[in-house]
Amino acid sequence: MSNVFGNLLKLSIFGDSHGKAMGGILDGCIPNLSIDEKQLEYEMQRRKSGTDFFSSSRKETDRFELLSGIRNRKTTGGPIGFVIHNAAAKSEDYNGLDNLFRPSHADFTYYAKYGTTESAGKLQASGRIFAPVVLAGGIAKQMLAQSGISIYAFVRQIGTVSLDKPYTSIDQKAIESSPVRCPDKHISDKMLQLLKKIKKEGDSTGGIITCVISGCPAGVGDPVFDKLQAKLAQAMFSINAVKGFEYGSGFSSAAMTGSTHNDPFIIKHNRLRTATNHSGGIQGGISNGEDIYFNVAFKPVPGIQQKQKTIDRNAHTVEFVTGGKHDICFVPRAVPVVEAMSALVMADSFLMHLAYAE
Amino acid sequence: MSNVFGNLLKLSIFGDSHGKAMGGILDGCIPNLSIDEKQLEYEMQRRKSGTDFFSSSRKETDRFELLSGIRNRKTTGGPIGFVIHNAAAKSEDYNGLDNLFRPSHADFTYYAKYGTTESAGKLQASGRIFAPVVLAGGIAKQMLAQSGISIYAFVRQIGTVSLDKPYTSIDQKAIESSPVRCPDKHISDKMLQLLKKIKKEGDSTGGIITCVISGCPAGVGDPVFDKLQAKLAQAMFSINAVKGFEYGSGFSSAAMTGSTHNDPFIIKHNRLRTATNHSGGIQGGISNGEDIYFNVAFKPVPGIQQKQKTIDRNAHTVEFVTGGKHDICFVPRAVPVVEAMSALVMADSFLMHLAYAE
Amino acid sequence: MSNVFGNLLKLSIFGDSHGKAMGGILDGCIPNLSIDEKQLEYEMQRRKSGTDFFSSSRKETDRFELLSGIRNRKTTGGPIGFVIHNAAAKSEDYNGLDNLFRPSHADFTYYAKYGTTESAGKLQASGRIFAPVVLAGGIAKQMLAQSGISIYAFVRQIGTVSLDKPYTSIDQKAIESSPVRCPDKHISDKMLQLLKKIKKEGDSTGGIITCVISGCPAGVGDPVFDKLQAKLAQAMFSINAVKGFEYGSGFSSAAMTGSTHNDPFIIKHNRLRTATNHSGGIQGGISNGEDIYFNVAFKPVPGIQQKQKTIDRNAHTVEFVTGGKHDICFVPRAVPVVEAMSALVMADSFLMHLAYAE
Amino acid sequence: MSNVFGNLLKLSIFGDSHGKAMGGILDGCIPNLSIDEKQLEYEMQRRKSGTDFFSSSRKETDRFELLSGIRNRKTTGGPIGFVIHNAAAKSEDYNGLDNLFRPSHADFTYYAKYGTTESAGKLQASGRIFAPVVLAGGIAKQMLAQSGISIYAFVRQIGTVSLDKPYTSIDQKAIESSPVRCPDKHISDKMLQLLKKIKKEGDSTGGIITCVISGCPAGVGDPVFDKLQAKLAQAMFSINAVKGFEYGSGFSSAAMTGSTHNDPFIIKHNRLRTATNHSGGIQGGISNGEDIYFNVAFKPVPGIQQKQKTIDRNAHTVEFVTGGKHDICFVPRAVPVVEAMSALVMADSFLMHLAYAE
Repeated sequence: MSNVFGNLLKLSIFGDSHGKAMGGILDGCIPNLSIDEKQLEYEMQRRKSGTDFFSSSRKETDRFELLSGIRNRKTTGGPIGFVIHNAAAKSEDYNGLDNLFRPSHADFTYYAKYGTTESAGKLQASGRIFAPVVLAGGIAKQMLAQSGISIYAFVRQIGTVSLDKPYTSIDQKAIESSPVRCPDKHISDKMLQLLKKIKKEGDSTGGIITCVISGCPAGVGDPVFDKLQAKLAQAMFSINAVKGFEYGSGFSSAAMTGSTHNDPFIIKHNRLRTATNHSGGIQGGISNGEDIYFNVAFKPVPGIQQKQKTIDRNAHTVEFVTGGKHDICFVPRAVPVVEAMSALVMADSFLMHLAYAE
Repeated sequence: MSNVFGNLLKLSIFGDSHGKAMGGILDGCIPNLSIDEKQLEYEMQRRKSGTDFFSSSRKETDRFELLSGIRNRKTTGGPIGFVIHNAAAKSEDYNGLDNLFRPSHADFTYYAKYGTTESAGKLQASGRIFAPVVLAGGIAKQMLAQSGISIYAFVRQIGTVSLDKPYTSIDQKAIESSPVRCPDKHISDKMLQLLKKIKKEGDSTGGIITCVISGCPAGVGDPVFDKLQAKLAQAMFSINAVKGFEYGSGFSSAAMTGSTHNDPFIIKHNRLRTATNHSGGIQGGISNGEDIYFNVAFKPVPGIQQKQKTIDRNAHTVEFVTGGKHDICFVPRAVPVVEAMSALVMADSFLMHLAYAE
Repeated sequence: MSNVFGNLLKLSIFGDSHGKAMGGILDGCIPNLSIDEKQLEYEMQRRKSGTDFFSSSRKETDRFELLSGIRNRKTTGGPIGFVIHNAAAKSEDYNGLDNLFRPSHADFTYYAKYGTTESAGKLQASGRIFAPVVLAGGIAKQMLAQSGISIYAFVRQIGTVSLDKPYTSIDQKAIESSPVRCPDKHISDKMLQLLKKIKKEGDSTGGIITCVISGCPAGVGDPVFDKLQAKLAQAMFSINAVKGFEYGSGFSSAAMTGSTHNDPFIIKHNRLRTATNHSGGIQGGISNGEDIYFNVAFKPVPGIQQKQKTIDRNAHTVEFVTGGKHDICFVPRAVPVVEAMSALVMADSFLMHLAYAE
Repeated sequence: MSNVFGNLLKLSIFGDSHGKAMGGILDGCIPNLSIDEKQLEYEMQRRKSGTDFFSSSRKETDRFELLSGIRNRKTTGGPIGFVIHNAAAKSEDYNGLDNLFRPSHADFTYYAKYGTTESAGKLQASGRIFAPVVLAGGIAKQMLAQSGISIYAFVRQIGTVSLDKPYTSIDQKAIESSPVRCPDKHISDKMLQLLKKIKKEGDSTGGIITCVISGCPAGVGDPVFDKLQAKLAQAMFSINAVKGFEYGSGFSSAAMTGSTHNDPFIIKHNRLRTATNHSGGIQGGISNGEDIYFNVAFKPVPGIQQKQKTIDRNAHTVEFVTGGKHDICFVPRAVPVVEAMSALVMADSFLMHLAYAE
């Protein structure tokens, strides 16, 4: 009841972090869409670990196979099934932990819910579960691109270091050249320094990602329970470790007044626009043609290289150090995940929009 | 496609702000639940306007009729249908506005989506659409109470005035005695002063609500796309004017380290507990038995008593002053709405939990 | 979990047969559709009882009120909420029956499911629950008419009397002039004679309805689980007392051979057609542009004017005669219900079709 | 929008008949259920082709791999992902047919819907798409068995030869020893003779399957749109080539009277039972504790070894003989498919039942 997402464009996923393979089914894609597999490989590559000092040293190949729904590089309209092989599956990394409730992990809650005898890290609580999401989101991006809608995200904050500029004044092309996906060279360097210090301390940290959706026409989204922001929020909180979401003016709007917060309508280049965009491109749950943008906050990785005390399944107090190959900060690797979930929401909403377009 | 909410406990709503009546259908309620109608009236009363200087002077009676699904004060298990009469419907208030795209309202986006010839304020973009939600949420609360789960919310911030205390140190009983639903007398007074000033200026402001869910057992919620926080986030962003949502440590977690953020497990009174609750009662999308708590940020009311320029449907620039009877700040009135949406999510998730309980 | 129907065009209904009112919400209708209320009244009138010797003598006014979603006779795009008043509610008719499990009624199964203390006849098991469906289906019909799709049904069999002609050789205009909605005068008369005899015996009988959907373009419907016939079948078995459904060649196809059953493609008036239509207008779950037609079988009304033995809630054997005002045969009154459910399926499928049309 | 089935127990499937692999994801299975893989292999084996003269000579190995959701032979509660390898994929069989609209196939409707350039036989219209369904249904059967619910089906009719006995007088153990899955030796032999004759003529035929669900407690199912029979009907019409469905007394009930059709309640072995079972174990959409039984009619295989005329994509009349390796009659092979779809419906409905059980 938890592994299917979307209304018209429906993604179902499966996979344990330490099983043979993960995968998914993307149902409801438009037919005759050209699929660029190289681009999908690039998206998968962006999420992969093992290349930076602050990421898990676990080597994931994330090699995927598209098994149906695509012929001669075009979608058939049928469900797109795919698997992602778990080359690096090493469940021995978790040996000795199955019995522990690691702090701020899902071990205890999975145990309470499922009563299974293994660590939640081996099950669906792993961040790897988002590899299929990135692949499906990559297909959704290609579908959206055809209608002129594009999506990008970048790292705005890591731990105590943050980029205090609106997204409109950053250089989108600089994102991927930063190891932490922060497009400001100076801030990016400070972030790397902070991460080195945190690594030395055997600790971890969190961060904030900003995501921008451009080119969405006015009229996409629905009133009340399917507001565009409600679907985006649900999508973002599906991602592990997300603790906050705000769009447009977000939390800061609470302290503003109507007269300063309202976005005046203007005519620009013969098109209706707003002079400011506190609304974040959405009014009444429906896109207004301006950029849609939002922030997503991530908590620190709970697995740290310091001794921690906790309780095991026999209610004994135990001391342990996290094994496995954990990230110091997975926020940079979460950038393509944020984009993928956004793409799935937008493609789904766009299809719904088409059903009612004249 | 936007007026049905929930999986097992399903709420469908209808109503235009200025039509004859609003209403809803709550399907999937457990049978033989005693319904306290007085308590439902009290919830409706809490959302009503017309009693405070900072609320719309529109007199809503919000008289409701339960039409099915309840016999002899007990649920039958069938759908609970209800209507709420629109005594104060005065669509003339909007005369002359139908042609305008009011700034930061849904006029333009509704026009782009539906091409209707009337102001969005007369349609589903009105906050009144949440009257049926409060009624249904009241029933969900009574269902949850039977399982020991309770929900309350209070105002943490109005405009620039905020209450900087954790929810654990406030007096829950003081909430309803404050006109702005802020349980700290001193801060509540400051908020009222601010609102008076803003009213004098013909302006409006936003705020932040904190909501707390107590008594939820461990194991409620689902992994990945139906994480408890994802469902709560979707529910909150369904509410008009919500711009931000964070649970537990929220946005502040981004700057923390794993060693300070992790919630150590302890044994207390023979029960597994966490020493701190940065997790906000949810780990891996599933409740851990601690309080679930979150903040919801609201933007300022867009309707203000100042002259504003905007564009009309003929692309002409026009100047106008908002008519109608608008709130200076609807955050205090949004408290029961936040509780109601939370109750619907929790009751739905709890039913799902029961399907898999042994 | 049982009172919401459809994906894009979603109908939620409520109502107990003997409560104050019934009603529903139709969400997802296209905006700016002209609504002919007279036509809706006509549809409601067709389902009503009390006019024929073989129908329940209960006088239902079935007066409805449209409460939202329609302004100036056009849909706004928002949910259409409506109530239908229960003028004839007389729950005393059921006095003394609450304790009985009437044979082939839902009394026992409702009791097993809900544990409620009243007869199922007062709850959702009543056929009156389909009054809201007929209203909503009437709106769906008007939506379909705009795209050239029309729907009609007629009575093919009542008890042992049946009309053994293909639908293509009947006169559609003669349906409503027959009291039993059978377009063949001779057969219609024989049906009336049979019903008189059955009434005299204090008994009841069943029948078969044929429904025809014309004008549906090729390409509507989906493979596998949302095949057009699967959605129509679910819709028909939602109707009380339906025991069988077959489309196109139906059950008789089992005995045929491929060479006689296959529908050859031909070109006719410059359009691709099939020479025969055993396929019933659907191939692989998707419409092929030919008429969609199907049969729906109804069991006899279980309430009869003869003494029956049964068991009560205390496991005692009791003898009783059905009270209330039951039909001898409700098949003629089920004709508009079959049409309405078909219209809801077709309008929903057609919207889905539009989402993917170029 | 067509490849996901179920509410709580949700099956998503993918696969083209002639692609690399098919597969599925079964989400919502209870945790800690012991899975017997040998039994799953047996179910898959039952659906396989290539063993009988009347089945396609295509050799399918239908080797499956369970990729997630099962550890140490027990379900984890997470989604069960699996693939089924297409050893025999030979898309050359379809060479020359891509351009044709074969009569009573889905070629034309798939073309109208998707505009793809290949034969529908290569896409989702193939019966092989039900291999994943049989696997998932096998898991659902094991889940149901744990609650005492069992399901079996048999062939009642092939072409003009039919078994005219109630299911209660057949020997369930004789089903699998008949090559056509008809438990009556005499009728089974006659069916085989008929099939030999039809094969010689290069023709094909249809048939009828009876399915029986035993051990379901009273109270499973929901009123109105989710009636148990409505969900079963939808499930059956999802299966390719199904043209009719009837449960209990089915179509024959139309000619009966209430006094003969009603099932009297009795007390037997201290349990409430019905003396007859025309109701087919369901009253008001909810199980009554008796056997649930129904018939499913299949049309003849459209692919025959005779010359047929048809139209191609260029609107030319062409003559052709079906290539590929088609069945003369696939009804015997559809028996496990009918059981599997029934198992998915019952397991889903049973979980829903548990959500509301006290």
